[in-house]
Amino acid sequence: MKHEIVFIGKTKDSFIQSGIEEYSSRLKHYTNIQINILKDKSGGKTTREAIEIQGKHMLSTVPQGAVIVALDSRGQQFTSESFSQRIVNWELNSVKQVTYLIGGPDGISENILKSAGLVLSFSKMTFTHDMVRLFLTEQLYRAYTIKAGERYHK
Amino acid sequence: MKHEIVFIGKTKDSFIQSGIEEYSSRLKHYTNIQINILKDKSGGKTTREAIEIQGKHMLSTVPQGAVIVALDSRGQQFTSESFSQRIVNWELNSVKQVTYLIGGPDGISENILKSAGLVLSFSKMTFTHDMVRLFLTEQLYRAYTIKAGERYHK
Repeated sequence: MKHEIVFIGKTKDSFIQSGIEEYSSRLKHYTNIQINILKDKSGGKTTREAIEIQGKHMLSTVPQGAVIVALDSRGQQFTSESFSQRIVNWELNSVKQVTYLIGGPDGISENILKSAGLVLSFSKMTFTHDMVRLFLTEQLYRAYTIKAGERYHK
Repeated sequence: MKHEIVFIGKTKDSFIQSGIEEYSSRLKHYTNIQINILKDKSGGKTTREAIEIQGKHMLSTVPQGAVIVALDSRGQQFTSESFSQRIVNWELNSVKQVTYLIGGPDGISENILKSAGLVLSFSKMTFTHDMVRLFLTEQLYRAYTIKAGERYHK
């Protein structure tokens, strides 16, 4: 199963970029992981319309049959163990790809929420985009170490 | 009001250390923030007894009258806005210091939980110690930008 993470724009904080690289590289020992960086199509606008244009652009890159996971603080929370179990279940159900879409600072597209198989929340707290990227790669790595019964996850 | 964050041992991941330094330095424009690094007293043991010895050591550094915030995934979750409001309330109630104590990978001391004025959870998910340190400094910084009505918090 392939995990694809879609980012809008490059990661700004260099320390976060280092962390993402670290976890992605560790993840490659367990699964197929790809980070897809898309151009920002909002033109700096934060209107509902701009968010939907961005969302449409993100959705257009998702292959048919991929499960869409939208990252949004109002979504469902998992423990690391139950998130790992969810990955196991996708694999058991022959899911070929899971695509993670992260909303912008001014909200997430309604179309993405409608298309998502899962709306995942890490925290009720708001974090920067860059931070959410880091959490996601770390939790994916953690999920695979839990699955493999390894020590890291504690 | 002073915020003191107590860490057991140095931050291992260098990229996280950079992030903590970045947010702590930004925080200094708003408030008094101090990071207190204590020696690991567990001797590598993960027993309940070792956790309590560590906890006692952490508690011994907390000055009289400081509000203790214990970080634990089973604690109470806040939005960034409500956490910022909590800080405002502490200030309004003449709290002189808030001390943040982070549990170890094998759990948090019962004594710390009993002494805590607040058990704070960022996520149901488990993160590394280092990551929790980064979240905490970032959320403290965010809380002060919210309080100041600044743009960062979005």
